[in-house]
Amino acid sequence: MKAVKTKESPAGRWLSYRPEIKVLDCTIRDGGLMNNHHFSDDVVKAVYTACAESGVDYMELGYKATRKGIVAGEHGCWKYCLEDDLRRIVGDNPTSLKLSVMADAERCDYQEDIAPKSESVIDMIRVACYVHQIPTALDMVKDANDKGYETTVNLMAVSTVPDRDLNEALELLAGCEAQAIYVVDSYGSLYSEQVRYLVKKYLTYCKESGKEVGMHAHNNLQCAFANTIEAIILGANRLDSTMAGLGRGAGNCSTELLLGFLHNPKYDLRPVLRCVQDHIEPMRAKLRWGFDLPYMITGQLNQHPRAAIKYNATEPREDIVKFYDSVNE
Amino acid sequence: MKAVKTKESPAGRWLSYRPEIKVLDCTIRDGGLMNNHHFSDDVVKAVYTACAESGVDYMELGYKATRKGIVAGEHGCWKYCLEDDLRRIVGDNPTSLKLSVMADAERCDYQEDIAPKSESVIDMIRVACYVHQIPTALDMVKDANDKGYETTVNLMAVSTVPDRDLNEALELLAGCEAQAIYVVDSYGSLYSEQVRYLVKKYLTYCKESGKEVGMHAHNNLQCAFANTIEAIILGANRLDSTMAGLGRGAGNCSTELLLGFLHNPKYDLRPVLRCVQDHIEPMRAKLRWGFDLPYMITGQLNQHPRAAIKYNATEPREDIVKFYDSVNE
Repeated sequence: MKAVKTKESPAGRWLSYRPEIKVLDCTIRDGGLMNNHHFSDDVVKAVYTACAESGVDYMELGYKATRKGIVAGEHGCWKYCLEDDLRRIVGDNPTSLKLSVMADAERCDYQEDIAPKSESVIDMIRVACYVHQIPTALDMVKDANDKGYETTVNLMAVSTVPDRDLNEALELLAGCEAQAIYVVDSYGSLYSEQVRYLVKKYLTYCKESGKEVGMHAHNNLQCAFANTIEAIILGANRLDSTMAGLGRGAGNCSTELLLGFLHNPKYDLRPVLRCVQDHIEPMRAKLRWGFDLPYMITGQLNQHPRAAIKYNATEPREDIVKFYDSVNE
Repeated sequence: MKAVKTKESPAGRWLSYRPEIKVLDCTIRDGGLMNNHHFSDDVVKAVYTACAESGVDYMELGYKATRKGIVAGEHGCWKYCLEDDLRRIVGDNPTSLKLSVMADAERCDYQEDIAPKSESVIDMIRVACYVHQIPTALDMVKDANDKGYETTVNLMAVSTVPDRDLNEALELLAGCEAQAIYVVDSYGSLYSEQVRYLVKKYLTYCKESGKEVGMHAHNNLQCAFANTIEAIILGANRLDSTMAGLGRGAGNCSTELLLGFLHNPKYDLRPVLRCVQDHIEPMRAKLRWGFDLPYMITGQLNQHPRAAIKYNATEPREDIVKFYDSVNE
C-alpha cells in the first residue's frame, strides 16, 4: 500500500508502509450481532490469541450496554463486557494488543456501565451513534476520556446523511476528545468514489484537530476490503476488520485480506488463517453471514439490511425477484 | 458511475452514465473452466435469455478450441462452440444480444475452427493470449477480422508482465484490427492502484488507435467488482462479468453487482437475479467457485491459482497454514 502524498509510480510506492496505520479486529463485537453475542470462551480466546500473535493493534470484544430490563440468557456476555468476563479471557492482558469495546449512544448507561480505566483491562471506548445522537455521543466521549480511556466516534449510516448535516456533525466531532472519527458504511452501500469523497471530507475536519480518520466497511457490494484500501490510500489510519468478514449481514472487511495487503512486517497472516479455519468458518453454517443477493440488493438501494436479514432468516427463502420488488416499492 | 473527465462533486456526476459501456457476460465461458464445459442446455438457455432480457451487450458461450486428440466426453460442447451447438440454444439469435467466443492462442486451429461470419451466429471472436504469444494472437485477430467478426485481445496474466514487455506488447496490439484490448487479472492479484496504473497505460496506447479498453477481473482478493469500477472510472468501456461470479477459482466480477452499479436504464437486474437463483446458485455445491482462503493466498502472492484449485479439490482439505507455507516456499 502506498504512503500518502507520494505521486511516484506504483512500483515506487508499493512496497512501503505507513506505521501510523492501526488495525482493529472487531470479529467478536460485530459478529455478536449475528448470534446475540453468544460466543463460546474458546472462540473468544482463539480470536484474542490470533490478534495478539498476528500483530493486530486492537481487538474489540463487544459492547457496553444497559442492563436495565435484560432477559436472562437472551444475550451473551459480550453484549455487556463486564470486567469479570473480559478477564476470564484475557487475564490482565499481558500483550501489546489493546482492547476496545463499543458503546451505542442511548443504549448504554455509560456513567455507571463504564468503570474508570484504572479498574479495567479495556484500553479504548468506541462510541457509536447516528447523526442525530451526536450530542449524546459527545457526552459519552467526554465521560470515557475523563475516566482515562482512549476514545473514538463511529458515526453510523453515513451514506444516508446529507452533506449539510455531515459538515455540522464533523465540526462538532472535531472539537471532542476522541482520537479518531470513523467513516461507517453501515448499509454497505458505498462505492469507492463515495468513500474517497467522505474520507477526504473527514480528513479536512480531523487533521486540524489532530484526529485520525477510520474506516468501517460492510460487504454488501463486495467492496468492504476495496473501500478500506481506498480509505488507506487517502490517509485513513484506523481500519476495522473481522476474521473471515464475520459480522452483521454481508459482513465486514476481512482481517486476512487486510493483513495480506498491509506491508508492515509486524503483521503476520498465519495466526489469523489458523483461527479462521479452526474457529470462525465452523460457525458459518449456523450464522450464515457474508455476501448474498438480498444484502446486495439493500446495499444497492442504500437501505438498512434489516429486510435482507429477515428474508434470510425465513426457510425456505422466498423468491429473490419478489424480494427485490418488495424493497423497491 | 461517473462520466470520464468530469471533476464535479460525486452528487453531480453520480447519476449519469456512459453509453459507450458494454457489458459482456462470460458465465458459460469462464464458468466452463470449473466443469469442463459440461453445462446442461437448460442452464445455457437460461443465461442466454437472462442476458437478452437484462440488456447485457454480449454473451460469451465458450471457446473455439482444437479438436485434435480430443477424448470423447472429456469436455462439454462449449469447449468447441460448434455452430450446431450454438444454434440449438440461440437459433438465429433474434435478439439485440451479441454473441462471442474465446479462442486461446496456440489452443485453436483458428483457420479451420472459425468459419466465416456469414456462416455463424457468432458476432465476436475474443483472442486470449499470454504476452509471449502476441505474434500468434495478431495472426488470429487478423484471421477473424478478415472473416467478418468483431475482435478483441485479452492479454492474460498482466500482473506478472514487466513494464518493458507490456509497453512493447501494447504497441503491437495498438496496430492490430481488434476493437478492444483487455486488462486481464488472471491471478486475481491486482489492487485498485495497480488497476488504475494499467488501465491508464492501456488507454494511452488504445486511444490513439481508436480502440476500447476492457477489464476482466477475478475475485481472489474480493476486488473483482471494485477493480472493474475503477477501470470504468478511468475510461474502460468493455466490462466482463459472470452471473454469481461463476468462473475459475475465486470467480469473476458478478453481473448482478455490475448491472446494479451501472446507471444506464437499458440494464435490468431482475432477469439476472432470477437466473442466478434458479440456475447458477444450484450449481455452487458441486462446482464450488468463489472467494476462499486458498485463492486469496495465491492472489496475494500473484501466483496462478492452480495450487489453490488442487488444494480445494482434495477432500478433506489440508491445513490452511500448511498450504500457506507451501506456496510461500
